[in-house]
Amino acid sequence: MPPDTARTRAKLLDAARAEFAEHGIAGARVDRIALRAGVNKERIYAYFGNKEQLFQHVLSESLQELTAVITMPSDDPAEYVAQIYDFHCARPELLRLLLWEALYYGNEPIPDEDRRATSYAVKLQEFAEHLGVQPSPDVAQLLFSLIGIAAWQSTMPQMARIILGGETESEQAKARRREHLVEFTRQSIASAKQG
Amino acid sequence: MPPDTARTRAKLLDAARAEFAEHGIAGARVDRIALRAGVNKERIYAYFGNKEQLFQHVLSESLQELTAVITMPSDDPAEYVAQIYDFHCARPELLRLLLWEALYYGNEPIPDEDRRATSYAVKLQEFAEHLGVQPSPDVAQLLFSLIGIAAWQSTMPQMARIILGGETESEQAKARRREHLVEFTRQSIASAKQG
Repeated sequence: MPPDTARTRAKLLDAARAEFAEHGIAGARVDRIALRAGVNKERIYAYFGNKEQLFQHVLSESLQELTAVITMPSDDPAEYVAQIYDFHCARPELLRLLLWEALYYGNEPIPDEDRRATSYAVKLQEFAEHLGVQPSPDVAQLLFSLIGIAAWQSTMPQMARIILGGETESEQAKARRREHLVEFTRQSIASAKQG
Repeated sequence: MPPDTARTRAKLLDAARAEFAEHGIAGARVDRIALRAGVNKERIYAYFGNKEQLFQHVLSESLQELTAVITMPSDDPAEYVAQIYDFHCARPELLRLLLWEALYYGNEPIPDEDRRATSYAVKLQEFAEHLGVQPSPDVAQLLFSLIGIAAWQSTMPQMARIILGGETESEQAKARRREHLVEFTRQSIASAKQG
């Protein structure tokens, strides 16, 4: 790819990520993305296809960043859950994109579903290895639940403030939540290892 | 309230719930709500105020339905978590409303926050009683996490399909998820009781 093209694509993806994170798929405007990026709107269609396809490019890039940042530490899978928590606190865009996607497609299949399944199959394999068991439907349930508790505060900030009491964004409050997640995960992993 | 007024209000709230669940706060159109309800648009402003206030009416009504349906069984708090799971599977609107609210307000306070806090304080008190402990920040963390795992499949249906494998909406798949939640909750409650 010529350097100019790569630069234009990168600018468009940055602008699209900001727009989609703020407004969702239905609410995003391709005009605004072009304006933010300072690039002609026709380029968006030429590089990425329609708005839904552009959204999948943005989301796919964000998911790769999470995979690159978060490793499953061999000595403590609970740390993996805490890292997911930290990631979503520090970089709320990815979770917002996933939530907009969930609200947009609901129970309809998403365009990228098969490819994404391959990437999660790797995570499941790693997670099972750390438990010292074979991948199974039960291990998948556990992994899915642990991702859920790691992401729940960033998913429902209003409910977090209400149940956990007011200030949830301070370093102290985040440290307390992180500690709970680590402890909670260790308990559930201990029982999965026994099972 | 005269019967006609009560009927009109109820029709408007039903129409508003469908519109908000589908399109969110930013995406909802007061015109469409009036049209769905067959009621003049001016009535909406007169009865409920602006669009954000109408949304809070709708959400408040949906939250009361959840509270009315779900009881915390004295012999098994894990059943409470399973009931939350069942509720969201059967009636996806409430969770959609909460997610739209989360995406709309983010870390800004929601208009109804203080009143809603009172209702969750009652839930926390009941939950602590069932654990045989005093309400505390740790018990609040646990309650918040358990609500999260109960709601996670309905929150992220695309991730559920990917991690749990394809069909997640069948009765069999739901029964398996429910079973996992009950077991998971019993483990975490057992350790909270010890703690």
